[in-house]
Amino acid sequence: MNEFEIIKRYFQRKIDDPDLKLGIGDDCAIFNFGSNNVAVTTDTLVEGVHFFPDVEPHALGYKSLAVNISDLAAMGAVPRYFTLAMTIPEYNQQFLEQFTHGLFEIANRHQIRLIGGDTTRGPLSITITAIGEISHGKEITRHKAKIGDDIYVSGDLGGAALAVFLKSNQTHLNDQYLEIEAFKRLEYPIPRVNLGLKLVGIASSMLDLSDGLSSDLEHIVRLSNVGAIIDLDLIPYSQSLYEIDMLNRINMAISGGDDYELCFTSDPENREAISKLSTELNIPVTIIGSITDNIGNICYHMKGMPFELHTKGYNHFTD
Amino acid sequence: MNEFEIIKRYFQRKIDDPDLKLGIGDDCAIFNFGSNNVAVTTDTLVEGVHFFPDVEPHALGYKSLAVNISDLAAMGAVPRYFTLAMTIPEYNQQFLEQFTHGLFEIANRHQIRLIGGDTTRGPLSITITAIGEISHGKEITRHKAKIGDDIYVSGDLGGAALAVFLKSNQTHLNDQYLEIEAFKRLEYPIPRVNLGLKLVGIASSMLDLSDGLSSDLEHIVRLSNVGAIIDLDLIPYSQSLYEIDMLNRINMAISGGDDYELCFTSDPENREAISKLSTELNIPVTIIGSITDNIGNICYHMKGMPFELHTKGYNHFTD
Repeated sequence: MNEFEIIKRYFQRKIDDPDLKLGIGDDCAIFNFGSNNVAVTTDTLVEGVHFFPDVEPHALGYKSLAVNISDLAAMGAVPRYFTLAMTIPEYNQQFLEQFTHGLFEIANRHQIRLIGGDTTRGPLSITITAIGEISHGKEITRHKAKIGDDIYVSGDLGGAALAVFLKSNQTHLNDQYLEIEAFKRLEYPIPRVNLGLKLVGIASSMLDLSDGLSSDLEHIVRLSNVGAIIDLDLIPYSQSLYEIDMLNRINMAISGGDDYELCFTSDPENREAISKLSTELNIPVTIIGSITDNIGNICYHMKGMPFELHTKGYNHFTD
Repeated sequence: MNEFEIIKRYFQRKIDDPDLKLGIGDDCAIFNFGSNNVAVTTDTLVEGVHFFPDVEPHALGYKSLAVNISDLAAMGAVPRYFTLAMTIPEYNQQFLEQFTHGLFEIANRHQIRLIGGDTTRGPLSITITAIGEISHGKEITRHKAKIGDDIYVSGDLGGAALAVFLKSNQTHLNDQYLEIEAFKRLEYPIPRVNLGLKLVGIASSMLDLSDGLSSDLEHIVRLSNVGAIIDLDLIPYSQSLYEIDMLNRINMAISGGDDYELCFTSDPENREAISKLSTELNIPVTIIGSITDNIGNICYHMKGMPFELHTKGYNHFTD
């Protein structure tokens, strides 16, 4: 099976979309967004860095696209198209079937269409570039947090980091249900697209939590030229952390990555609107702190006292 | 040095472009193309597959982007933006300096701007997604070649394949100048952007030669539902093939990949216009055959006789 047969068999799907002028099969894909803006994001998943060598191909296909959709969600963009650059060691029918099953499962859920890419042989690695549509001036960036804004996170935190810990240490929880929950967070993160879209005009800044709250929040603090205070008692810890002691729980929820929840800031006057949104979408949303004038600093508090974090979020090249 | 410092130090450049609403540093980049279409292409270069492990980082940076710009050129699109997903085994200042030097050299030449990406640790691999702008309905696709059209190639063919052959076999040409020429074709291909743009409205179909003429032309034949005849006596063989015997010369020029010249079809009535274009742009353009009604077949002729090709273009997963 050659690369063109692989593309045709596994990746080429019928796309019914008047904005797409040309899909898979030419030098480029071509589309038109009328007068709206185009949002573009790229994320790579490398074996041994972003996923374990024995990951289920279905989960890998799902997650490769999910993390990119999550970036679109974090701008308040509507997911539209993506390209897939896939490097695989060899042709493997079972792998490709399961991978594409996971990939198109989430693609179809979010109506995001595969329009091109590149299939090459080499060490397993997946790079997706996702393209979204956004109304002029409606994007939610990282640089407009205001002093006094509330800081929110969606969902709960720490489950993905727990799964990485269990897997890396070849250990298990006593409660198998909690362990399954943790792995679901790691392998099947839920991009918060609807929440991101509804927060347009409400959130002053937003990003998705990929490297861990402590690391990701630094971007908002630095780019908005503000400070932040986080109350560790308010963090929505993942239920799966139930068996974990408090210090490790904080560590996993604050410094662990891979949760792909949204973190955003908003003027306190929007609390009721956000609470209604949360109910309407059935997505938990929690205030965990606020933006301060302590420029460049993020302070953590627990039980009213300053608390010093001992670990930072994940960072390539410094670990 | 962490990934954010790497991005800031090596990749973040001042971009003065009113269409770019948001560049590097957020979840997505955002741009606006008014009422024009957006062309998107992705290409991956993997160590040991697309380049030799001892490739000059400068050449790697250059070529990673050049092959993507070449895809935009092959649609008749104007290069505008690109994202870079870079997987490198470790932080290496010298590598990054030379790589970015080559990358931005060609980026600046074509005014294409880096707007985002991902930097991760792992086996060396580069994936670039390039984005171009194209007027509504002006794209030059692969599926509109007409029976009777001339088939053209730009530049000359076979130099890149010769360089791969010399390198793989640890051998040399007698003439060092010719050898340098061959490696220039392999490492510093010239995307034919201006030619691609000028061929809008003139070429009926077009693509760039990455896998080799015999393999790439099959896409036009298949997608346009036509046949083709190629006269091997008309092929513009690279000067660097001077020392190579005729059969290997044909092999390298027809089945070798990596030349990144344009191959296009056009009605014979456009011959004069294309000849003038070639002179104006100082890019050789040669008629090498024509589109036939022998659907699905490409026939090769030499000295008026049918000639059977014994090798095909490069194809991942079948070699």
